[in-house]
Amino acid sequence: MSQKKINAPKGTRDLYPEDLLRQQYITNAWRDAAIRCGFDEIAGPTFETTELYAVKSGEGILGELFQAFSGKSPKEVERVKETGQAEFALRPEFTPTLARMYAARAKELPQPCKWFTAGPYFRAERPQRGRLREFLQWNVDAIGMPADDNSTENRARMDAEVIECMVRMFEDLGLIADALTIKLNDRNAMAAFFASLGVTGDQLEDAFNLLDRQAKLPTDALRTQAQDANLPEPFIAFLTKADPSTLPDLDASDLDSVCSVCSVVEIDRWIARDHTIARGLAYYTGTVFEAIAEGERAVAGGGRYDNLIELFGGPPTPACGFGMGDVVLGNLLDDKGLMPSGAELMDAVSRPQASIRPVAFVVPNGDEANEPLVHSLVANLRRGIESEPWKSRDDRKPWDSDRYSVAPVHARVSYKSTRNIKKLRSDAERQHARYFVEIHADNKVELTDMDRRESLTSDTHGSFSVDPAAPNYVGAAIAARL
Amino acid sequence: MSQKKINAPKGTRDLYPEDLLRQQYITNAWRDAAIRCGFDEIAGPTFETTELYAVKSGEGILGELFQAFSGKSPKEVERVKETGQAEFALRPEFTPTLARMYAARAKELPQPCKWFTAGPYFRAERPQRGRLREFLQWNVDAIGMPADDNSTENRARMDAEVIECMVRMFEDLGLIADALTIKLNDRNAMAAFFASLGVTGDQLEDAFNLLDRQAKLPTDALRTQAQDANLPEPFIAFLTKADPSTLPDLDASDLDSVCSVCSVVEIDRWIARDHTIARGLAYYTGTVFEAIAEGERAVAGGGRYDNLIELFGGPPTPACGFGMGDVVLGNLLDDKGLMPSGAELMDAVSRPQASIRPVAFVVPNGDEANEPLVHSLVANLRRGIESEPWKSRDDRKPWDSDRYSVAPVHARVSYKSTRNIKKLRSDAERQHARYFVEIHADNKVELTDMDRRESLTSDTHGSFSVDPAAPNYVGAAIAARL
Repeated sequence: MSQKKINAPKGTRDLYPEDLLRQQYITNAWRDAAIRCGFDEIAGPTFETTELYAVKSGEGILGELFQAFSGKSPKEVERVKETGQAEFALRPEFTPTLARMYAARAKELPQPCKWFTAGPYFRAERPQRGRLREFLQWNVDAIGMPADDNSTENRARMDAEVIECMVRMFEDLGLIADALTIKLNDRNAMAAFFASLGVTGDQLEDAFNLLDRQAKLPTDALRTQAQDANLPEPFIAFLTKADPSTLPDLDASDLDSVCSVCSVVEIDRWIARDHTIARGLAYYTGTVFEAIAEGERAVAGGGRYDNLIELFGGPPTPACGFGMGDVVLGNLLDDKGLMPSGAELMDAVSRPQASIRPVAFVVPNGDEANEPLVHSLVANLRRGIESEPWKSRDDRKPWDSDRYSVAPVHARVSYKSTRNIKKLRSDAERQHARYFVEIHADNKVELTDMDRRESLTSDTHGSFSVDPAAPNYVGAAIAARL
Repeated sequence: MSQKKINAPKGTRDLYPEDLLRQQYITNAWRDAAIRCGFDEIAGPTFETTELYAVKSGEGILGELFQAFSGKSPKEVERVKETGQAEFALRPEFTPTLARMYAARAKELPQPCKWFTAGPYFRAERPQRGRLREFLQWNVDAIGMPADDNSTENRARMDAEVIECMVRMFEDLGLIADALTIKLNDRNAMAAFFASLGVTGDQLEDAFNLLDRQAKLPTDALRTQAQDANLPEPFIAFLTKADPSTLPDLDASDLDSVCSVCSVVEIDRWIARDHTIARGLAYYTGTVFEAIAEGERAVAGGGRYDNLIELFGGPPTPACGFGMGDVVLGNLLDDKGLMPSGAELMDAVSRPQASIRPVAFVVPNGDEANEPLVHSLVANLRRGIESEPWKSRDDRKPWDSDRYSVAPVHARVSYKSTRNIKKLRSDAERQHARYFVEIHADNKVELTDMDRRESLTSDTHGSFSVDPAAPNYVGAAIAARL
């Protein structure tokens, strides 16, 4: 037997025990936040047919992928020898798999269908800081609409809930809104604005691609590329001179709706509108967003993709989601001193995860009930209450065991249009919720233990009312009774 | 945009929420048992260079693999077009990665180095029940020897600890020794026996391969293949007539040692010697074992591979480990009614996992200390104490929240040869153990809280002695004080 020293493939990682714990610290935070926000975890194959990626992104994508074939199948080997293209590809992203999985069961799935996944992805790129050939990615998506109603209000609600999930995760890791901004834009409004500058429908993809690269390319290169694509001069003037801090005259009504829901769930301080956010990918429609850390590092990106499920053979289905990799996030935590080590890391990774069963299922009781209060309460339950206001890493560590006076829990709302309390209760039962929380018109809260089928707002526990101005304390009051 | 319905690649899985929870129920059990038995989790790349697999298994292996290449690299595309062989392969197993990772850091790693990993693997096979093209596998390995001493005693100790880890996992899932047997054999003893039948060194691999397939092939085919390989007639007579229940005249001393340690940690009822267990792979040396369920289903397999680390460029290093897939195990749990569903499944998967920090670090204090008692106590801590004896699934469910009166915990021993209590204590500190447990010569137990640096065997907690005949109760006594 001859000795041979072989290295790991370039751009992949050998994770020794502490390396893996650091990665698990991140994936635990991903899972915990997604579960608390009511997303169900799913998983797909590590490789798919190359056809699946070509459907979404065209044949050009194949040059960006690791391609794979069965060495056992003469047919597959023959094909790759003839064409240089293989039957399969290691997945570079999750969205095509998600769309395929949703389309296959569209009829039986709930509306909306809230899914997340965390697993390995692969890109045939030159490895560099923040970019590897194999990395983990967290995907969080809401597919379909509450009560099957694709209204502006419902789209805003789903956009905001997906963004809320990302914010809960940042909060858990001790990141604060100063360190990271979620920049928001509206592709529809931008498209209308571009049209007013003379951009035709055929040129829209080029226009968004150039906008996406605006910060990365020098002005001269931007101008040359825009001219090569025959884009009109008013657009080129906007592209090359536009100051990211001043907004063009856009229709802001859709983003106004999103920001309004973000205020209710108290994540508005994380949000900033920015008309340079384009998301290069052609499939985005409506809201797009990117989480940008200091130094313009993009930590996550996503948006609304209302046409994609149909493209994969499903019914027309609005959808919204984002992806976040572990490499850039890990670098950011390191830079901020927010990554534990040694025994603290071991304890942090060992901490119990959020309950997969919903702990609280919160509904309005009756037409007069305070609906925004329902959402604000749910947000507070998902977020928990910190022992003291979170300021900076110097005072405390996010993994301190006494961080929360009220621990964050898995809380859900009903997406059904009904106000019938029996129907809402069976929705909670179907989702195996532990406690049913009704908000009455007088802001009074009623709690039911669904396993024991008994009310907790009896004399023993005391019923209580909500001060809509201080929902924080109501979250605590509910949590204290659970 | 044209609608297109694309399916998942054959032999892969789309895991919808409840499907994934079922898989997580299994992977949680894997992690929990491995952590409690003191194994550290690691992870490697999903694909490796094809060279890595060829080193261990020869070029022939490439036809069994999914091969991969970067579609972006003209060199890699050219190579695959010319040769039909690609630069990389999706990993079919973990051992080559493990050997590579160990070899790269051999000098700085502890002795023994106890590692586990759980992730996706890939085989270019025809999918069938229990066999998919993408599946999860749990790998548990102990590399190197306690006190760097490759004695029969130490080999037996490591073999038994790896097997113990597997048994703890079966116990957690509610499997009992009646449903599953870990069949044990010794390749060295078998090789000596084969030599006595006239098998030459060159023929040994063929002989083991045929033994491995003995149960699967009809007698005629066995005979023909053995004759084709020019194996001697006495071997063929053994191969074709041997009754698995009668042992040939083997040197049983090494297996005796393994079984003796298995008795100390009370897993002996799971073990049966079986001279038909061969493990086809050429790299096994010494002990080999397979966990066989009813219907001759192999749930797991492994053994000692003392030459492999060297083959991958590391120093000569004895090692032992096993692999277990999620598919056959999942089928077994389904068949036995041992897989929860609905709210019970959600609760079972949400349950806290074993502490990654060792809870108890147990050492003998002084040369006269009762060493087997140390190992028996550690085994009891890792196993916990059930509220009532576990019999069958009809009475209770393994996921019942009141299953244990004393919950299983992560317990470790020192593998150093020293009896110096200060050195043992710094070993415990280096591993971030929470409690230090000393067993004195009089079987008296002394507990120290390592975080608070205070003895717990004070007047408040009461010191206590051990009855070696009833270590179960001592495990409880220790656990009650933690």
